Amino acid sequence: MKAFRVLLAITFCVSTLVSGKDRNRPLEVYSPNHTIKVQLLLQQGVPFYNVQRNDQPVIANSRLGFSLKDIPALEKDFKVIASKPSSFDETWTQPWGEVKNIRNQYNSLTVVLQEQSGLKRKLQVEFRVYNDGIGFRYEIPQQPNLKDFVIMDELTEFAIARDMDAWWIPAYSDDMDSECLFHKNNVTALSQKMHTPLTLESNDLYLSIHEAALIDYASMTLFNNGNKTLKCDLVPWANGDRVVASAPMKTPWRTIQIADKPGDLITSYLILNLNEPNKLGDVSWIKPGKYNGIWWGMHIKTHTWEGGPNHGATTANMKEQIDFASKHHLSSVLAEGWNEGWEGDWTVSGNFNFTKPYPDYDIAEISRYAKSKNIGLIAHHETGGNIANYERQLEDAFKFCAQYDIHRLKTGYVNRRPAGERHQGQFMVRHYHKVMETAARYKVMLDVHEPIKDTGLRRTYPNMMTREGARGTEYEAWSDGNPPAHTTILPFTRCLGGPLDYTPGIFDIQFKTEGTFRVHTTLAKQLALYVVIYSPLQMAADLPKNYEGKPALKFIEDVPTDWEETRVLQAEIGKYVTIARKDRNSADWFLGSITNEDERVVDISLDFLSPGKKYIAEIYQDGVGADVTTNPLPLDILTQDVTKASVLKLKLAKGGGTAIRFHETN
Amino acid sequence: MKAFRVLLAITFCVSTLVSGKDRNRPLEVYSPNHTIKVQLLLQQGVPFYNVQRNDQPVIANSRLGFSLKDIPALEKDFKVIASKPSSFDETWTQPWGEVKNIRNQYNSLTVVLQEQSGLKRKLQVEFRVYNDGIGFRYEIPQQPNLKDFVIMDELTEFAIARDMDAWWIPAYSDDMDSECLFHKNNVTALSQKMHTPLTLESNDLYLSIHEAALIDYASMTLFNNGNKTLKCDLVPWANGDRVVASAPMKTPWRTIQIADKPGDLITSYLILNLNEPNKLGDVSWIKPGKYNGIWWGMHIKTHTWEGGPNHGATTANMKEQIDFASKHHLSSVLAEGWNEGWEGDWTVSGNFNFTKPYPDYDIAEISRYAKSKNIGLIAHHETGGNIANYERQLEDAFKFCAQYDIHRLKTGYVNRRPAGERHQGQFMVRHYHKVMETAARYKVMLDVHEPIKDTGLRRTYPNMMTREGARGTEYEAWSDGNPPAHTTILPFTRCLGGPLDYTPGIFDIQFKTEGTFRVHTTLAKQLALYVVIYSPLQMAADLPKNYEGKPALKFIEDVPTDWEETRVLQAEIGKYVTIARKDRNSADWFLGSITNEDERVVDISLDFLSPGKKYIAEIYQDGVGADVTTNPLPLDILTQDVTKASVLKLKLAKGGGTAIRFHETN
Repeated sequence: MKAFRVLLAITFCVSTLVSGKDRNRPLEVYSPNHTIKVQLLLQQGVPFYNVQRNDQPVIANSRLGFSLKDIPALEKDFKVIASKPSSFDETWTQPWGEVKNIRNQYNSLTVVLQEQSGLKRKLQVEFRVYNDGIGFRYEIPQQPNLKDFVIMDELTEFAIARDMDAWWIPAYSDDMDSECLFHKNNVTALSQKMHTPLTLESNDLYLSIHEAALIDYASMTLFNNGNKTLKCDLVPWANGDRVVASAPMKTPWRTIQIADKPGDLITSYLILNLNEPNKLGDVSWIKPGKYNGIWWGMHIKTHTWEGGPNHGATTANMKEQIDFASKHHLSSVLAEGWNEGWEGDWTVSGNFNFTKPYPDYDIAEISRYAKSKNIGLIAHHETGGNIANYERQLEDAFKFCAQYDIHRLKTGYVNRRPAGERHQGQFMVRHYHKVMETAARYKVMLDVHEPIKDTGLRRTYPNMMTREGARGTEYEAWSDGNPPAHTTILPFTRCLGGPLDYTPGIFDIQFKTEGTFRVHTTLAKQLALYVVIYSPLQMAADLPKNYEGKPALKFIEDVPTDWEETRVLQAEIGKYVTIARKDRNSADWFLGSITNEDERVVDISLDFLSPGKKYIAEIYQDGVGADVTTNPLPLDILTQDVTKASVLKLKLAKGGGTAIRFHETN
Repeated sequence: MKAFRVLLAITFCVSTLVSGKDRNRPLEVYSPNHTIKVQLLLQQGVPFYNVQRNDQPVIANSRLGFSLKDIPALEKDFKVIASKPSSFDETWTQPWGEVKNIRNQYNSLTVVLQEQSGLKRKLQVEFRVYNDGIGFRYEIPQQPNLKDFVIMDELTEFAIARDMDAWWIPAYSDDMDSECLFHKNNVTALSQKMHTPLTLESNDLYLSIHEAALIDYASMTLFNNGNKTLKCDLVPWANGDRVVASAPMKTPWRTIQIADKPGDLITSYLILNLNEPNKLGDVSWIKPGKYNGIWWGMHIKTHTWEGGPNHGATTANMKEQIDFASKHHLSSVLAEGWNEGWEGDWTVSGNFNFTKPYPDYDIAEISRYAKSKNIGLIAHHETGGNIANYERQLEDAFKFCAQYDIHRLKTGYVNRRPAGERHQGQFMVRHYHKVMETAARYKVMLDVHEPIKDTGLRRTYPNMMTREGARGTEYEAWSDGNPPAHTTILPFTRCLGGPLDYTPGIFDIQFKTEGTFRVHTTLAKQLALYVVIYSPLQMAADLPKNYEGKPALKFIEDVPTDWEETRVLQAEIGKYVTIARKDRNSADWFLGSITNEDERVVDISLDFLSPGKKYIAEIYQDGVGADVTTNPLPLDILTQDVTKASVLKLKLAKGGGTAIRFHETN
């Protein structure tokens, strides 16, 4: 990991002393390229900030502050007692990721506010202004009149200064949490509390509001508080408290990514930059990769999680999966339903035992067999939301992993929330963090399903690899599924938070199960998703028998999960997106292009390829007559010699896609 | 109250004994007019029902049953041990309402199921089939092997058999509960839990799924469980239990209103019919009427709820309101913020005192003054969601009302839910019921804000008059407000549950307040809402000073709140609706017509008027150049002689409306 750091001289304009009649003059800080400006100002002692880009307002004056429990709010009567500008420029290397090197370049301004009367409490706000957006966080410093306290409301606002549409899913939707389809509405028509990332679009401006480094705080949701002002709403504890805290403390960063076009949101790494560097030291044991496993069969009801005649996680089935992984260059194998506790309504009881395999799952033999084939095992801890039960067993559960040389873990929190505590509240933020730290101690990589939302902690804890937190492929198995537009929205919304374990790769699109369920893509689109939706752990989700003998499987074998570079070539949110990524371990590039329910032809310039190099393009495209509804399976695989000067014409069927490997030949 | 009852002979076809090879033959029951058919059938012992209309499927086979806590589910291994057909026809009179006489005509089928092995428990399902839809409920009879139990899931499904769009708001949106804007999506695209009434539309079929007589149970929400199957999801207690019950018990009715056109949903009284008759005996003390009061001023920030220099509920302000009510034929006056407890963040503390007025609110003098003017007072109990605090004071609070001769009460449950218990769960269902019964004992009429959803209990408890449970006019004061389409959706969704206190009548559409808030209708549409949105207590919500001298005020003076008859003349959900209602206490008819953001011209045949009678139509219509955004105030008031043979051409501005009084002259 090579990183270099340049501390710039402070060259931008900012008041460092504010007194007398200048007290109400706004403090300002500009992005390094001078296009984005953030102002902090006091109006009758009440703090506001605003954001402009090229002198046009993006965020109008927006409140800052807190309501606290049983004591006066920290919201007014302020004066500025200090303001500290600073600057930073460093390029750091991700141990794994969608891009190798990330430049972290910003100007910052830290403003210290103090109440002018009464308790004379202090509140700091730090702004970091990047070329691709801003982040800010509160700090409540150590001080005599504010020690232990409860935040009842964070007053932070985002007053949208233009006419924009929002792509949103509801917050507080309880058991479903973030597993919803997205809606698009004008900001003025928003009437619910919404999850972040919340992405907004207009003709020439794209914003995404989210947070970075959510560690010991409540998740921020947003609602339209009128005048197009999105207000922060912190997910409460069961008793209504929002955040329990002690000074000194820092909140998560509130982030606003700002882009001219939607693809630039995807290649903005502002959220990662706002997280702390790797705390784990040597992370050479952390390895991206593809996996398969015993999972889809339960969703399409050919297998069961619980023991019995159709039990999925048996020794024999695992050996079949391990053989498949070994043959097709996958790195690891998952088994759900391997441990006792799945009987009855486990979403209610959650009484799982994390160290007791079912009798037909011989963990010692499976571990031995996997190791003999150089395949890793992925443990599975479904908690059913019974946090007390899981935390009681936590150390033992990870010792059990260590005993069987397991370094990958999928966790699950299906359905019930523990004792009234909300999925995204401070209680659960703490729980997920505890599991992540424990996993790191045991050298275990994490894939969290029904997770806390992703705020870029993978930078600090690189074992926090991927998570769900979206309506994934499993919904295709037992619900009306994910309409083709869904995956053309995810990259610009959910995926801005971080990697998504969408579990693509279903080849048997029209599987037989109860009802009329099916997958809502063409076969080619299933392949394209491996490039479009980034995840360092990427599943080949279908049953081995549905892959064997299929030429399309070669793309899954070839596609990497660790990237040197990412380029968004074309995109319109909810319609189509084309992404090219360069393999981190070879000279190859890969491309994924997907469309919504409409067919379309797109011309792709290959100018991202290296100059002077020749490539064979291995193209997996929708075959003649392919159509998501009537004929999803036709797939043409063709090869073509291309260079940087080439232009490819991609034909995407309704609900279709194209996946390409560009294999360098010289 | 005149009612007559006819018990019909059982003339429809239904198996009464099911045995041997007929065991799997469906049991059937038809609507009185034979258009709607409901079947109950067992598939391998699992009970299903379906609904057809004119031999076309409306609801495909849909599950019935329960999951229970710690004991086997009540869902399978059933046989039919009895089936009892019956029939009923009665016309009953509402003491007050949107229509005077309601025919309650149905055929019913009660099926007794028993498990064939194990605990051999019994489960009954009763279907009532009307010409305008169906209702069914479960009964768990007294039996040896099922006494006290906890329902963890009600398995009831509604498998939509056609391609339909749903008009929905999310359930579980916590503090906002049902105060959301509606969305329209194809059933297959629904991905969240939704409130009922849930209204579905296609070209020639309109459905609304809801429930009747929710008394000691959890509210039913719905989600798309795949294959267009909407599944019941009961709002849980904080610990995850759904319903705590003991046999014998009956669930609320699950209702499906079925109509050819959207207006027929509005004039379907199926939900009222499925509630029990009046339990209160003499209800001559219950009187519909219009009210004004100290309320809008707090929303537009000219007054405060809490005491202080801008306190709204002062003796002087109340006398002004009482004078206004007396002068303009309103019946009662509301004061919010009259009692101690509004200081600080009352939505968190909820520490209200319901018997202690602020010092500047002289309740004795106000009561005396109101009585001298023949005006009633409306008490206000804002609980802040602090149920323990309210229930502790409940008797004292009502004694206080009695002491000051107060027979109307507005309650409120803004924001925080008590100790983690959900707004629509069994805990709160019980609370709202307790308040309603207590109010009845003290002869107090209720107007509940932030209510439990309306399931027609006003039939049984006629003091339960109206409620909010929707995004009402107050949102116009401090949010981006209610787009013009909102009120063209409410009559077909929220209002199917029962009366809505929407608080119309804002004349100062473009009031001055912080920000750019305003009302999103024309002035004429404000008048039309008094007819379109039914409520037995209807507010004139604006400040007295904004009414004085305005000719439009005459319509508010004239419009009744108690109706003999209701006719929906034209309607398209989300676009426009025209409703005519006949006054219960005169020969006059009234008409309200409203549109969404589009202007339109509608021809209205007056054939609802009485034959041989002459009427003067007093027409309040959008004036020249009226437009919701640019010019909301122009209002033309004109009169025209009309008869049953007349046709009126109404011109509705963008976001506009027309209100008409048809005054009989001979």
